Amino acid sequence: MSDLPRAVEIFEEGPREGFQIEPGPIATSRKVELIEALSATGLGSIQVCSFVNPARVPGMADADAVVDALRPRPGLRYRALWLNEKGLQRALGHGETLSLAGMIVLSASEPFLMRNQNRTIADNLREQRAQIGVYRRHGIPVERILVMAAFGCNFAGDIALESVLETVRDGIDLVAEEGVAVETISLADTMAWATPRSIKRVVGAVRERWPTHRISLHLHDTRGLGLANAYAGLEMGIDSFDSSVAGLGGCPFAGHKGAAGNVCTEDLVFLCEEMGIRTGIDLERLIDAAQLAEEIVGHPLPGSVMRGGSLRRFRAPA
Amino acid sequence: MSDLPRAVEIFEEGPREGFQIEPGPIATSRKVELIEALSATGLGSIQVCSFVNPARVPGMADADAVVDALRPRPGLRYRALWLNEKGLQRALGHGETLSLAGMIVLSASEPFLMRNQNRTIADNLREQRAQIGVYRRHGIPVERILVMAAFGCNFAGDIALESVLETVRDGIDLVAEEGVAVETISLADTMAWATPRSIKRVVGAVRERWPTHRISLHLHDTRGLGLANAYAGLEMGIDSFDSSVAGLGGCPFAGHKGAAGNVCTEDLVFLCEEMGIRTGIDLERLIDAAQLAEEIVGHPLPGSVMRGGSLRRFRAPA
Repeated sequence: MSDLPRAVEIFEEGPREGFQIEPGPIATSRKVELIEALSATGLGSIQVCSFVNPARVPGMADADAVVDALRPRPGLRYRALWLNEKGLQRALGHGETLSLAGMIVLSASEPFLMRNQNRTIADNLREQRAQIGVYRRHGIPVERILVMAAFGCNFAGDIALESVLETVRDGIDLVAEEGVAVETISLADTMAWATPRSIKRVVGAVRERWPTHRISLHLHDTRGLGLANAYAGLEMGIDSFDSSVAGLGGCPFAGHKGAAGNVCTEDLVFLCEEMGIRTGIDLERLIDAAQLAEEIVGHPLPGSVMRGGSLRRFRAPA
Repeated sequence: MSDLPRAVEIFEEGPREGFQIEPGPIATSRKVELIEALSATGLGSIQVCSFVNPARVPGMADADAVVDALRPRPGLRYRALWLNEKGLQRALGHGETLSLAGMIVLSASEPFLMRNQNRTIADNLREQRAQIGVYRRHGIPVERILVMAAFGCNFAGDIALESVLETVRDGIDLVAEEGVAVETISLADTMAWATPRSIKRVVGAVRERWPTHRISLHLHDTRGLGLANAYAGLEMGIDSFDSSVAGLGGCPFAGHKGAAGNVCTEDLVFLCEEMGIRTGIDLERLIDAAQLAEEIVGHPLPGSVMRGGSLRRFRAPA
C-alpha cells in the first residue's frame, strides 16, 4: 500500500536536547540515570551531551562527568555534540565511551545562517571544509550532511525546493572534493514549517537526485505536525529519524506541547510498531524512561503515549 | 501525488466536549462568548451543547440558556447532542436556533456497547430503529451512521475489519428498511487505537463497498497520532472531520496533551491549509478562539498551533 520501511533506526537526542535547555540545575547522577534507562530500551544511538561553553550552557557543564559515569553497552552508540575544536578535544578524551562522528552542517536558508552564526552560505562552506580537515586529522568519520531549515524558515519564509537541492549539492560536492564518504543526508525541519506534503516533495526530489544516499529526518513538533510529518516520511521509505524521549527539548518554561522541540521518541516508536515497522525498542521500557525524564525535569513534557499508555495491556491475554 | 481533497468540512465539537467535561463551574456568558468567537471564524458547524441530565453532567445544566443567548448566523449550523427523547424534546424547543440532525449510533465492539450502555449489538439495533421512528415523527433528518470503536477497543482489543464492515452494513440495512436516506458514514476512533495504516485500510474497505456514501472521521489524540491519522484520511480523500478547538475535551484534571480528547481544530486547519486544502476557516481567528477557550477553562489545553503560532507573520510582507 506504500513504501513503508520494514524497520527504522532512531537517534535519541533527549538527554542532550533536554538537559541543555532545562533551567535546572539537574544532578549529574540523575542525567546518568536517564541515560542508563534509555540504554536498556533497545535504542541503538543516544546523544548524551554536548561539549560546549559552560558559561553559555550551564546545563552541559558536567558533560565530562556524565560521560565518565556511563557504562558502555555492546551495540549501543553514545554520541556527543560539539560546536568547535575545543569541544571536539573534550569529546576526544572520551574515545572509549563515545562514538564520535562528524556532520557537515548546512542551511537551506542564508538568513537563518546569518542570524544564528553570522555567516553567509559561502563562509559556512569554507568553515565546513575546514571541519572536514579536522575530522580527517582525528580519524573521525563524517556521518551526515545536515540541511537545516529544509522546509521553511522564520527569517526567509518558505524555502524553494531548488534551495534545498542546491544546499544538498553543496554538501555532496564538498565531501567529494575532500575525498570523504558520507552516507546520510539529514533534512531538518528546524523551525517546524514542514507538512506531510512538503516532506514528500522534498524527500522525493532529494532521493531522485541522490538515490544511493540514505535520507534521515529531524522533525520538530512546534505546530503539532511532528508525527504526521514522520508518517509522510515513512510513506516515502524513510528509515532514519532523530527524536527526543518524552519530547525533551521543548521550552522549559512552558512545560506543555505547544513549546515542543523534537518529535517525541516513544510516540514515534508507537506509530512505527503499531504499523508493523520494527524499531528494536521496547516501548514499555521507553515509556518508563519518558516518565523518569519528566520526574527528573520536574514539569510536564510534551509526550502523549507516556500518558495515554501503550495498547499492550488491552491485548494481553487475561 | 495522492487523493488529497480540495476542501474539507470541519464539525466543531469543542463547546460541547469541553464544557461537558470541565470540572468548573463556567459562567453561561463565557460559554456563549466562546461560541460567538468560533462563529466568527468561518466554521460551518458548531456543536454547542448536549441536552442531558444535569445531575449527571452539571456542566450542561445551562444548555437551554446557552442556546437562548446565541445569535444565529446565516450559513452556520448550531448543533446539539441528546441521548434520549427527553433531551430531544428540549432540543426541539430551540428549533429556530439549532440545526437538529439525528445519528444512528453503532459500535464495532460489542464489549464496548455492553460496558457503556449494557446493550448487545442486537439490542442496540432495535434501539436505533426506534430512534429512527422518533426522528421521523419529528421531521428530523438522520445525518450519519456513526461507528464507534472502529479501529480498536479497550474492552475487545483489535477490531477485525470484518466487524467494522458488518457494523456499517447493519446501519445501511437499517436505514434502508426504515426508508431513511443517510449520506454519511462516520468512523470513530473512540479509544485512540487507530494508526495511519489502519485508517487507510478501514476507510478503503468501507469506501469500496459503499462508494456513494461520504465517510467522515472522528479521531482522538490520546496517543499523539490524531493529526497523522487525519493526514492518512486526507490521503484517502476524506473531506469531513469532527474536531475540538484547542483540543477541548481532554481530561480536565491533567491539562496536558496526554489527556487529549478529540483532535484539535486549529491544528487540523493548519495541517489542511498549509497543504493547500481549503477549510473556509480563518486560522488566526480560530487561534484567538482557542486561546480564549484556554482562558475560560483556566488550565492548559492540548492544542499546538495556539502556542506555536501560524506561519502568517513570517510570510507577511515587511
